[in-house]
Parts: sequence; structure tokens; C-alpha cells
Amino acid sequence: MKLMIVNPNSSETVTGAIMESARRGASVGTELVPVTTKGGTRNIDSAFGDYLSGAYVIRTCLEAAPLHQPDGVVLAGFGRVGIDALKEALTIPIVSIAEASMAMACLLGHRFTTLTMLQQFIPYQQDLVRLFGFEAKCASVRAININVEECVTNREKTLAELSAEIRKIVAEDRSEVVILACAGLCGYDTELSRLAGVPVLDPVAVAVKVAEGFVGLGLAQSKIRKFADPPQSLDAYL
Amino acid sequence: MKLMIVNPNSSETVTGAIMESARRGASVGTELVPVTTKGGTRNIDSAFGDYLSGAYVIRTCLEAAPLHQPDGVVLAGFGRVGIDALKEALTIPIVSIAEASMAMACLLGHRFTTLTMLQQFIPYQQDLVRLFGFEAKCASVRAININVEECVTNREKTLAELSAEIRKIVAEDRSEVVILACAGLCGYDTELSRLAGVPVLDPVAVAVKVAEGFVGLGLAQSKIRKFADPPQSLDAYL
Amino acid sequence: MKLMIVNPNSSETVTGAIMESARRGASVGTELVPVTTKGGTRNIDSAFGDYLSGAYVIRTCLEAAPLHQPDGVVLAGFGRVGIDALKEALTIPIVSIAEASMAMACLLGHRFTTLTMLQQFIPYQQDLVRLFGFEAKCASVRAININVEECVTNREKTLAELSAEIRKIVAEDRSEVVILACAGLCGYDTELSRLAGVPVLDPVAVAVKVAEGFVGLGLAQSKIRKFADPPQSLDAYL
Amino acid sequence: MKLMIVNPNSSETVTGAIMESARRGASVGTELVPVTTKGGTRNIDSAFGDYLSGAYVIRTCLEAAPLHQPDGVVLAGFGRVGIDALKEALTIPIVSIAEASMAMACLLGHRFTTLTMLQQFIPYQQDLVRLFGFEAKCASVRAININVEECVTNREKTLAELSAEIRKIVAEDRSEVVILACAGLCGYDTELSRLAGVPVLDPVAVAVKVAEGFVGLGLAQSKIRKFADPPQSLDAYL
Amino acid sequence: MKLMIVNPNSSETVTGAIMESARRGASVGTELVPVTTKGGTRNIDSAFGDYLSGAYVIRTCLEAAPLHQPDGVVLAGFGRVGIDALKEALTIPIVSIAEASMAMACLLGHRFTTLTMLQQFIPYQQDLVRLFGFEAKCASVRAININVEECVTNREKTLAELSAEIRKIVAEDRSEVVILACAGLCGYDTELSRLAGVPVLDPVAVAVKVAEGFVGLGLAQSKIRKFADPPQSLDAYL
Amino acid sequence: MKLMIVNPNSSETVTGAIMESARRGASVGTELVPVTTKGGTRNIDSAFGDYLSGAYVIRTCLEAAPLHQPDGVVLAGFGRVGIDALKEALTIPIVSIAEASMAMACLLGHRFTTLTMLQQFIPYQQDLVRLFGFEAKCASVRAININVEECVTNREKTLAELSAEIRKIVAEDRSEVVILACAGLCGYDTELSRLAGVPVLDPVAVAVKVAEGFVGLGLAQSKIRKFADPPQSLDAYL
Repeated sequence: MKLMIVNPNSSETVTGAIMESARRGASVGTELVPVTTKGGTRNIDSAFGDYLSGAYVIRTCLEAAPLHQPDGVVLAGFGRVGIDALKEALTIPIVSIAEASMAMACLLGHRFTTLTMLQQFIPYQQDLVRLFGFEAKCASVRAININVEECVTNREKTLAELSAEIRKIVAEDRSEVVILACAGLCGYDTELSRLAGVPVLDPVAVAVKVAEGFVGLGLAQSKIRKFADPPQSLDAYL
Repeated sequence: MKLMIVNPNSSETVTGAIMESARRGASVGTELVPVTTKGGTRNIDSAFGDYLSGAYVIRTCLEAAPLHQPDGVVLAGFGRVGIDALKEALTIPIVSIAEASMAMACLLGHRFTTLTMLQQFIPYQQDLVRLFGFEAKCASVRAININVEECVTNREKTLAELSAEIRKIVAEDRSEVVILACAGLCGYDTELSRLAGVPVLDPVAVAVKVAEGFVGLGLAQSKIRKFADPPQSLDAYL
Repeated sequence: MKLMIVNPNSSETVTGAIMESARRGASVGTELVPVTTKGGTRNIDSAFGDYLSGAYVIRTCLEAAPLHQPDGVVLAGFGRVGIDALKEALTIPIVSIAEASMAMACLLGHRFTTLTMLQQFIPYQQDLVRLFGFEAKCASVRAININVEECVTNREKTLAELSAEIRKIVAEDRSEVVILACAGLCGYDTELSRLAGVPVLDPVAVAVKVAEGFVGLGLAQSKIRKFADPPQSLDAYL
Repeated sequence: MKLMIVNPNSSETVTGAIMESARRGASVGTELVPVTTKGGTRNIDSAFGDYLSGAYVIRTCLEAAPLHQPDGVVLAGFGRVGIDALKEALTIPIVSIAEASMAMACLLGHRFTTLTMLQQFIPYQQDLVRLFGFEAKCASVRAININVEECVTNREKTLAELSAEIRKIVAEDRSEVVILACAGLCGYDTELSRLAGVPVLDPVAVAVKVAEGFVGLGLAQSKIRKFADPPQSLDAYL
Repeated sequence: MKLMIVNPNSSETVTGAIMESARRGASVGTELVPVTTKGGTRNIDSAFGDYLSGAYVIRTCLEAAPLHQPDGVVLAGFGRVGIDALKEALTIPIVSIAEASMAMACLLGHRFTTLTMLQQFIPYQQDLVRLFGFEAKCASVRAININVEECVTNREKTLAELSAEIRKIVAEDRSEVVILACAGLCGYDTELSRLAGVPVLDPVAVAVKVAEGFVGLGLAQSKIRKFADPPQSLDAYL
Repeated sequence: MKLMIVNPNSSETVTGAIMESARRGASVGTELVPVTTKGGTRNIDSAFGDYLSGAYVIRTCLEAAPLHQPDGVVLAGFGRVGIDALKEALTIPIVSIAEASMAMACLLGHRFTTLTMLQQFIPYQQDLVRLFGFEAKCASVRAININVEECVTNREKTLAELSAEIRKIVAEDRSEVVILACAGLCGYDTELSRLAGVPVLDPVAVAVKVAEGFVGLGLAQSKIRKFADPPQSLDAYL
């Protein structure tokens, strides 16, 4: 089975981090093809970033798909970034790391929390939960201000701060599961799970498993209405 | 007061229709500047069209705004098409015809219906209602298959079909207000109101009034969090 | 265009404050007719006050409307105070300052807060949000204990207290827009907006704009069902 | 124990029908005091009727309560008609037939339906369900056009029509319990239950039982906030 | 009238406490038959306890019902513990103390709180509120850690702690009514009501009143669909 | 990896059907251990069957788990049947076929439908959707009356009837994904998907994939609160 892992950001470094997570999620025999979006921002952190990168994401996918002939696509952005558009344009299963990790989190506890990077990004993330229909299971959206540099150089301090935040998530928001809603935090999930005593999800790894599941079962998004092919030929939009 | 009326489609014909509605909504002394999106599709009818046009819409607006120095912007697409991104990027009031007409419809009856063009576009429109937070007041989203040509050439037949549909909306969905959720139907609102006996809203005209109101009151979208300036300089995203 | 501005309280002083706000909301060419309710309480601060004043409000309006022949009515009470009854009894647009300001607030930020005067009035105000269908967009209802006298005599202290409260609304309730839900606070909106850095709405001014919009567009409440004429002749109820 | 049964309509005939239901609901040893509202309409069938009668209902209750010294009050109108105002003004338990019968219906089946008299009254009744917080348990609000005269003179025909409607309620709305939401239908509940095979509630009888329960348990509405005494002396409102 | 009061726990001591509450709720002339579940746990404090005791509860009831021929059953466990199964299996009214006390609490204030014993039991209790459809009226579920021994031996200390907690419920959760959601707290309701100034409900006493009401009115759970007899003969399940 | 597939019914024939589905869902290298519940009913079709079988399901699992030492458990009943109790009692991932298939269906279309066997079982299934928190994504619960015998002997007729029903689900309920919510329909999913043109899920196969995912990622239900070990030793409940 071959999965295309699409980084909606234009940064190869971020693609590298995403691929590490993706590989941890992949089963033996699953081939992963990394795809970095050509154009757009290096770091989607706003509705503005979402929309401007979204068009590049879609174009990049439509070019890469016929080339790599994947069995499924994982869209590795914790946001909309064109997910519905891709589900319309393609017939292979398209899996959003945000949507898939929320669906899985529902099964693991009473309520979940998504942990993002910026205070001002919280309303966007709350809209996302609502759009995907998981608000009944979402305890909260939280944001921490972490220096991305320090994430890499000072692992101990980062862990300490993250697990302190997760303790607040558990105690104050009464949440039971945490989703790391940004690429910068990939790779901290296992240690955080252990430190905080609750499941901490790396959404990329989870989404790879979900995509493998759909491909294995021969399932993909329903094309009957919402994700039907766009009414005009794709070229008319590009 | 000067309002920029932005057509998210790339069709000048559609801009013409939008401007007719906009002028009916405008007060004496309001100057309207039509802006047609450069690039993207001529007719946004899907999430695919939304996302691909969205990036062009944003770019077009960011170029046109410094040029025309408007007091407010009406985004004349019945969809997302980058509305949140524009609210982030600019500080003058940005008014979506979809969001504004739903807000006004709330005040006019028990529940409202949005009437769109394609069956497959209904889920997208339902998500829109949900995203804007008006689902408690929305009776239904309906779609009719109208030949756009015939809208222009055969007004009587079009009116008969539309008012028949609205009668179903009132009787079956128990709706009390109708929003014409596509540019092709602009200009039918007054006659339909009369024929069907319920308020039928032209969202462009309504949005112009709402934008005038915000400008007149010195109000614009809150920049405290959701619509704060994007964290990076705008150039980093373009 | 002529709008009747109805104060549901029986106090002429309150009418004066309301009219100041109304005039700030009115466009050139809009004539405003102040109407003070004859009978009822001077200050509606409870369901009890709402219901007992409501009957007087309705009677006062029904007497004043044929006299002044307005194009629309603004009901300047932040509550129910007979709003639905008036929408049934009349065919010109009837605009509640509570309902209209909430609808407009929806467009300005992620969530809004209404700020009222008494702790014990909060549940009533929460029911109001629910009744109008805006709970998905309402972050909170808050109350402050402000001495009405001091509002007039000690403007600096009042501003300081109000902006402190709004900072809590923004930080703790994560709200982005504030509606001043009582007449006593009219006239503080502009300075509060500036001090607190979020849009602060004077609901009277906003409702005047909404009423102007409806009149300008030829729209009024749907008479098809909820706001149909009462089944009996109006005299049978009075 | 003594209960005051308050008819919010001004018709003694309606009071007679209400008292028949009330007596069927009353336990041995419960004294029922009928009170007919002085003034207002003979038949509350709209928000207009609700508000105009509400003020009379409140005044009538406030006069009658010190006279009769009841242990509790049943407000026998299927609407708001001042219920919250009375809960504020008095400390003995105030029971709305609408609210109480919906609460009891929740316990008897998956979802309930309220059956009212006029199509145009349905939105008002839907708001009522929402205001009381029972929408998760409400399958539908339905209305039938029954000639009130015929209700009295042609019992067989009335029963046939009502049970036909209830069959539709069960089959189409998938409801399991029916509340007869108007005084005119009082006394049909037992036969309808038998004919239709689902519990059919006479809300007056149910509310008497609920009021007896509260009095017996020494319970009444919480006075801590929502139903606290109005801030001003009651005379200030009258 | 004869009511069977079923303790889902296997402890006779708990049955004793339940019966004290039940007697306080019972009217003159109501005969109460205590039934202690044979088998299962002495104290249901988890979903595990619920499910394992549930089967014993059902068997115990099915054996006791033909023996005692009650007119109604009160299931005295603040949980599911087989309530829907019993409603299916029997045609006499089955009243859950949890469901009935929540329904009554809805009528007494803006929102209610259920107060349970263990932090880890809160999510179960939140699911219960949701399952019964009362979430719109529920302010919070709270838990206190009370030593059950001390409840009996040190009444003053227990009262002090409970009323302190209820003050927090009122102030922080803005709740107006409290339900004592565990058998250990039975008998504290009256003093707590007085101390805390809000209605505090003993759910057993309330449920007895509700059951008396249903029996008195000839009502029981609808057998049309949800609570229809199980499709197979009962023996096939036992 | 070893998964225990638990049939909550006591019928070995049903276990056989479940295992066929499970094997279709299993990846190479996944060992499946079938476990048939000892005791309880052969066919869970009601809340009564759920509760009485639930206790046996739990006991059976607790006995089988130490014996087989599985890495995860799939509970193959489309209902509650003790799922939360098992999540409390064990630390390996416990996956409900109902909960898991609904979570996956969320990702595949605008809204999903669960298709069950009996009209009277619909309310139970609706409660299940609500309990799991997926009501925002659930278009409807439908039931068909299929003769279980005929499912086996007359495949063509069964397919014709099922695909006719699914066409109604798509057209009338506007659903886009169907979950076959009963064991008798296992094995029809692939052909139905093809015939009806929408994804049709076999919940057993889907749940196996989800369980594999959790095991592969080292995830299991959060033990922090809702699914914490029961407060007493397990023996105290059995």
C-alpha cells in the first residue's frame, strides 16, 4: 500500500518532522511518499495562511497524485487547508490529520483537548472541531507559547512545560485525551503520555493508521453528494 | 462612504448582476466600487471552487484596497471564499453576503431557508450555516435546478418555478424567510416576496446595508483574537 | 424615513438617554420619534417588570403608530417586553435592540458577551439569547453592579470599572465583542471600544441602523405564521 | 393542602373545563381554589394574547394569593403568560401546566409531542419547549384545526379526528407521548390514550400532581437568582 | 396504592437509608415495599458496578413484582442500572430516582447540579444527564469526597462540608438547585436547603412523589416503541 | 498482534458470522481469538437483552483475557452491552464496533445512517449515537424488517431490499454513509456499496482496523477518570 503524506506548509524541515511521525504510524509494507506543498507559507498559523496555502496544497496534490499513484492521501495540516476540496477532486481516501485524530480521540476518553501553538489560533481551531462535528466530545482547545527552536534544542524543558499544561487540561478542563495540534510538537507524544498519564496523540501517526484502515477495507469518502466531483472540469477552477 | 463590492468569481457578467443588487441596497451617498476577482473560476459551486478562488479573492482584495481606500468591503460570494482571512488581513469592516443575510434573516421570522443552485452544494451550505453559528434559526437548505440561461430569457417561467419551490419551503420545512443563495437569482427577490408572501432576501443588497451600518457606527470585526493580524507579515503567505 | 423609538420604561429620563444613542445611530434624513411607555415601571429589571410593562408597551405602541405613521419601530428594551406581540400586531418592521445587536455582534467576532446590570438578571438574559437563537455565538452574560447615579456624575470611575470588567470578559470568557445591555450604559460604547480594544456595541444605535436597513430594503417580519396577525381582532385582547 | 388553579383566560367557561381536569388530578384532601383572570382575552392564542393577558394574570394572582393563602399555584395556561414573573413575586411553588407536563412527559417515552390548536401558534409553542429546556426530548409540535363547538357537541367525531392525528404523530414524528396543549381538549386524554395506545397527558391534571408533590416535599422555586424577588417593591411595577 | 422501592445495591443498610427517604416522600395511604437486590455489589460506584448489578436488579424486580403486585416501582439508584430494561419488561410505571429528580429540578430553577461521591464518577453522571435529555438545564455535575462513616457519626462536620460545596455550586457554576446524587447523603436535604438557601433534593423522596403521581393519573411509560415488550419472551434473556 | 473478538450474544452461529467480518478487517499478522459470551440471550435486540447479556459479556471477557493475553478487544455488539465497564476493568484497548464504526463514518461523508433490524430498537440506537457524541454527524437511524433466514438463503432478494432501503436513506434522510448495525447483515457491505453507490460499513471489519491501529500506536482508553479502575476490587462486583 502506498500513502502520500502531504505537508501543506512549504517547509521541507516541517516535512521531515511530519515524516518521522508518519513512519511511526505506518505498518510494515506501507510505503510513504512525502509531498511538500510548492508555494504558500512555511507555517500555517491563521485563516489567512490556511486559505493562501490551500490553493497550493490542492495544486500540489493534483500534480503529485497521478505521478505517485497512491492508494490514499494523508493531509498533514491541523486545519482545513483544502481538505473538502481534495475529497471532491479525488476518489482515493483523503484523510485529514485533524479530523482523523479527533475521531480516534472520541473513542479513548470522555472528552478530548486539542493543543495548538498560538492564543489567537484558538477560535480557528474551535471552528474546526465544530465543522467536523466533534464538539460534543471536545473539552477544550488550548494553546501554549513554545519557542519552536527550544522544542528542538531543549527537550527536557519543553517536556516539563508541556506536561504542566496537560495537567491543567486534565484538572481544569476535565479532559482525558490530548491531541498535539501542531507539527512542532510531533515526537513528544509518547513521553507526554507517560508523564501526564493520559493518551497524547500525534495526529500524523494516527491519521496514517486511519488511512491504512480505509485502504485496507476498500473505503473512501462518499461521492454521492458532499464530496461529489466538482460540477465543472477541474481545469475550469485552476 | 465608499464600499468595495468584491465578486469572488472571475466573471464580469456576474459582477454586473451583483452590482445591480448592490445598488438597490445602497443608500444615497454610498459609493460602490466593483471588484472582480482576477483568476479562479467563473462560478464557485463547490468546496473546490471555494478554495481555489479564495486565494485569488484575497490577493485581489489586498491589491484593490490600498488603491480604492474603501470604508468597508462586501464579499459577494455565498460561501466562505476567504472571508475569515480577509477579516484577519484588514481592519475595515469585511461583510460576507452569506453571514450578513443570515443574521438579518434571524430577525424576520421563526426560521429561515437558504436556497442554492445544486443538490450537491447543500452540505457545503449546511456547513456554512453551522460555521456562522445560525443553525438554531435555519429551517433548511434547499437547492433548485434552474437553467441559468432561462433565468435571463424566461422570467415568467423562472418566477413560477421559484415561487413553487418557496411554497414548499414554507409548507414542508416550516420556514418563514428565504435567502436567495446565488448570484444568478439576484433581482428576483422583490417579485418573489410578493408572490410567495414571505420575505425573500437578496443577500447582496442586505449585506450592503449591513456594511453601511458598520461604517456608519464606526464598527469593524474585533481584532482581539480570531481576526487578529496574521502572525507573520502578509508577504510571507503570498 | 421615520422611525418610532419606543422606551418600554415609563421614565422620560431614560427616553432621553435612549434618544441620544438613537441619534448617533441614525442616518441623515431619518426622523426619530421618541415614545415613552405610559404606565409600567421606570426600570425593567426582572421578568416581573418585563411582563407588567409589556402590556403597557404594546398599548402605547398601538396608540402611537397610527398617530405618527412610522416606517419602522425600534423597541429599546434589552429584553422581551412584548417584542413578539408587536411583530404580530403590526406589519411595519419591529426591531428589538436586544435581538438586533446580538445579530450584528455575530458578524464582528468569534463570540459576544452581553453586559447587564444585576446578577439576578443574568438567567433572564441567558434565556433571551436562547430565545433569539444566538447561543452558539454567545460567550457569556455578565453583570456589573454600577451605581446609576455615578454613571452620570463620575464618568472616569465608571469607565475604569467597565473597562476592567471587559478585560475579564475578553480574558476569562474569551469573548471578542461586548454589548452594553442596559440603557444606563448608553454613551459609553465608543470610549470603551477604545479602552478595551474590542468592539463595544450600543444596542440602540445598532438597532436604528438595522431598522433603517429593513425600511430601506422594503423588508419586515414575515407574516406567514409566527408573526401572523393574532387570530382575534386586537380589541378582543385589550 | 390548598392549591390555587389560575385560568389565565378571562372566560369562566374555560375555568370550568380546567377545574374538571384539576379535580381529576387532585388527591383526596387537596382543596382546589379556582381563579379566573380578571381582564385580558377569553382565549390566549398568540404572543399578543400572552402578553396582554399576562399582566392581568399577575395582578389577579397577587390579589387572590393573600386572600386564599394557598400552598401552591397551578398556572393553567399552555404558554408563558407570566410564569417567571409569578415565580419571582411569590415564594410558594408556582407550577406551569406547560412546563410541568413536559417534564413528566420526558419520563414516559423517548420523545413527546405537544398538540395545540392553530398552525400559526406552533412557533410560539416551539419557543416554549426551548425556553423550558426540553427540546432534546420533544419530537414535534403539532396543531389541529378543531371547531371548539364540535368538541363539546360531537364527541365521537372529535375523538376520531384526534386519534387520527395522534397516529400520525406516532408514525411520522416517531413520538411516544402526547400532551394536549389546550384547554379545549381537556377531558379527552383518557379515551385518547386508550384509542391511540400511547400516554396522552392532560397538562392540568399532571400539573396538579406536580404541585401536590412540591407542597408535600416542602419544595418551591429557588429564590437564589433567577426567581429572586424583583429588585424594586412590587408596587413599583404595577 | 402500593409502590415497590428497589435498592439496586445488595446492602440492607443502604435499603434502610433509602426507605427513610422514601417514607418522607410518601403520602398517607401509600404502602412502600422495600426490595433489596439479591447479588451484585453493595455500592454502585462505576459503569462496572452499574452493569454487573443491573442484571441482578432486573431479576430481583421480575421476581418481586408478581409477588407484591405493586402499582409502581421506584428504582432507587442514581444511574442507569437497568432502568430502560425494566420499563420494557413491565407495564406499571417505573420511575428512576435520577431521571425523576432531574425532571423536577428543571421546574425549580434556571439550572441544576447533581452532587455525587467520587471524582471518577462524574463522566458517568454527565452521560446520564445527556441520556435523559436534561443537559440544557444542567449547570454541572460535582463530586465530593465524603467519608461515608463520618456522614453518620459526625453530622455537623458533614453539613458544614456539604453546604460549603453547595455555596461553590451556586457561586461558580451558577446553579440554583442541587440534587443529592447518592444514597449516603439521604436525609441531609432539608437542613442543606436551609443552610444553603437553595432547594436541595433528596431524589428518593422526589421519585416517590412522581411515582404516586403517575399511579394516581393512570399513566405509565409508553409501550409503543422504546419501551415495548422485548421481542423475545423474557425467559430467552435470563 | 492478538485481538480478542467478543460476541456478546451466546450464539456460536453469530460468532461465526462475526469472525468472517473480523477476518476481512484483519491485517496479515493479526491473530483473532473468537470469544462467545457464556449465558445471556442469543440475540440482543432490546435494552433488556443489553443489560442481561452485559453482565455475562463482562464475566466472559474477564475470564478470557488472562487466558488469551490479547493486545486488544473488539466488542462485537452494536450497542452498549457493557462497553464502558470493560474499558474500566481492563487496560488494553477495548473497541466497540458501534462506537468505532460511527467515528470512522464521520470521516467519510456529510452524515451517516445506522441501519438496524427492528423498528422498536431505533430509540435505543438513537440513544447510542447520543451517548457516543456523534449526533451532529448522524442523519438518521433506520430499521428494516428482514427475515434472518432469508438473509442466508435468498441473497438476491435481500440485496434488492437492502439497496432499496439505502436509496431511501440517501434520498430522504440525505445521508451519505451507511453502517450495517446488526450481525445478520455482515457480509453484505461490499455488494451494497457497489449497488447503492455510497460507502456501506461492516462495523466488525472497521472495528478490527481501529483496534489494530490503537495497538500499533500503543494507545488505549484514558484511565485518568471515566475509565479508571472501578473503586472497589473487581471481585466485590461479581
